[in-house]
Amino acid sequence: MSIIGIDLGGTKLAIAILSESGKMLSKEVIALDNRKGNEVGGLIIELIKKYTFSEGSPIQSIGVSMPGISRKKTGTVWAPNIAGWEDYPLLKEIKQVAGAIPVSIDSDRACAILGEQWQGNARGCKDAIYLAVGTGIGAGILIDGIILRGAHDIAGAVGWMALHKPYQKKYIPCGCFEYYASGEGIAKLTREILQEESAYRGVLREYAPEKITAHHVFAAFEENDPVALQVIQECIEYWGMAVANLISVFNPEKIIFGGGVFGPAIKFIPSIKAEAAKWAQPISVTQVNFEQSGLPGEASIYGAGFLALKNIHRT
Amino acid sequence: MSIIGIDLGGTKLAIAILSESGKMLSKEVIALDNRKGNEVGGLIIELIKKYTFSEGSPIQSIGVSMPGISRKKTGTVWAPNIAGWEDYPLLKEIKQVAGAIPVSIDSDRACAILGEQWQGNARGCKDAIYLAVGTGIGAGILIDGIILRGAHDIAGAVGWMALHKPYQKKYIPCGCFEYYASGEGIAKLTREILQEESAYRGVLREYAPEKITAHHVFAAFEENDPVALQVIQECIEYWGMAVANLISVFNPEKIIFGGGVFGPAIKFIPSIKAEAAKWAQPISVTQVNFEQSGLPGEASIYGAGFLALKNIHRT
Repeated sequence: MSIIGIDLGGTKLAIAILSESGKMLSKEVIALDNRKGNEVGGLIIELIKKYTFSEGSPIQSIGVSMPGISRKKTGTVWAPNIAGWEDYPLLKEIKQVAGAIPVSIDSDRACAILGEQWQGNARGCKDAIYLAVGTGIGAGILIDGIILRGAHDIAGAVGWMALHKPYQKKYIPCGCFEYYASGEGIAKLTREILQEESAYRGVLREYAPEKITAHHVFAAFEENDPVALQVIQECIEYWGMAVANLISVFNPEKIIFGGGVFGPAIKFIPSIKAEAAKWAQPISVTQVNFEQSGLPGEASIYGAGFLALKNIHRT
Repeated sequence: MSIIGIDLGGTKLAIAILSESGKMLSKEVIALDNRKGNEVGGLIIELIKKYTFSEGSPIQSIGVSMPGISRKKTGTVWAPNIAGWEDYPLLKEIKQVAGAIPVSIDSDRACAILGEQWQGNARGCKDAIYLAVGTGIGAGILIDGIILRGAHDIAGAVGWMALHKPYQKKYIPCGCFEYYASGEGIAKLTREILQEESAYRGVLREYAPEKITAHHVFAAFEENDPVALQVIQECIEYWGMAVANLISVFNPEKIIFGGGVFGPAIKFIPSIKAEAAKWAQPISVTQVNFEQSGLPGEASIYGAGFLALKNIHRT
């Protein structure tokens, strides 16, 4: 028996066939190539048909991870990076081709913590949090083994965490925490500092300011560049405070750091832990483990598979 | 059929007989009078015996709210304000006298949101948060109808929320949010400002600085005292940020403000909502209602009753 896990991103789609024990038997990645609305839905349908209804297919369940909000009650999805997906009936569309095969959909952050729970660094955990730091920031939160959804499926929007007063208008598009400590935030903060420091002669001046990315900043950090050191130090403070808040509020067993930034920022996890330990509820912070993702870049696709697997056992 | 709800505080104990429909049939309040450890346990046992085993007693279940941590796995409790209750076997003690009558214990903050859900302002809600602001700060958090416990029963320690960097040593005993925005924080901040403002001639100079309480500050606010205005404005900012973080993380239906400070601070709820709206995930903040407690001073005892009631229906 096998299951399908689909990981839809903003620019590409990955589809994997997984065994019930979590072995990835095959994986195909396809660029979205600016597909919009129905075209993205059509691509998913086409792939599901290809893998599910070939002769002798052992597929028994389908799980989908998507970049946005998955609405449980309606089965519709909202994906800010896919045009026309404000309230797209993805579940209905897939069910129409899947027939009797069960289908589940959840957000990429929910799938990430489920993937870690199934095959990654949250195995055995019932209360764990996946902090995804990439272009943006979000969290997948597992409470007693169940994904925290909230009243309207948008729980875990931790990029909006308020961490430094007073309020500033620049937080409007993305929230305070994400403004400073996302991949985009790291680049932005670096550009701001460079603009002010006309005497700066470090490695980052090699790039046009608007071209600077978080990866350049991490590389400059390795060379002890003073601006990179300052930016990373500030991020460690914000990551530590945000994680401290999650610890005080949830009393979890594990925090897992993932997304494109963790990645290179994995080496800062001990510093983040030290910062969090200053702020958090002092007993809770001794009861939690800090870990990197056990499935770098693949937590969500494994999570989609685990969604599918849970759906078999439920029915 | 009736149930017993017990609300143990740091200085007094209340015991109520409630009908299954949530009517309070009787209530008795007893001062703890510096009772310690076993003596507090003994008082609870004595009252349970009195109400449960009188002739024709209709008591079918017992619920207890206690000020601290209730450990689900062991049935023991930790109460910082009761000497000798580091790991006190309260459940075992009560069960010994209760016999076949079911017994449940939970923390006062968990009971507060359960009480509001049963008979207060969270009726009909499955995702709601009770923010208790008194001497300290904590939260009772309901997720899909279930109390958030965390891996080791200390979830909801929101007084430790990190809201303003950099870290300061003065946050060590209680956490950043509680330092500024608890009842004790309001008094402390006022004292700090008065010490610095030697030219101050307002109403708060009537009191010796060490005697100033949050109640004095709220009274001075009514007279437009500049120091009180400054302190309350700062608290509104912290309350707004903390509530914004709960909204972004949990996407709840309702936030209920309780504890001794709400109370007089109820009139600031609209200002807190305006502050929270600046910081929080912008969709979530439109989906949540802000309310005062529907059971001022009695949310926890009703919640203890609801614990008891749930225990009947479970068994």
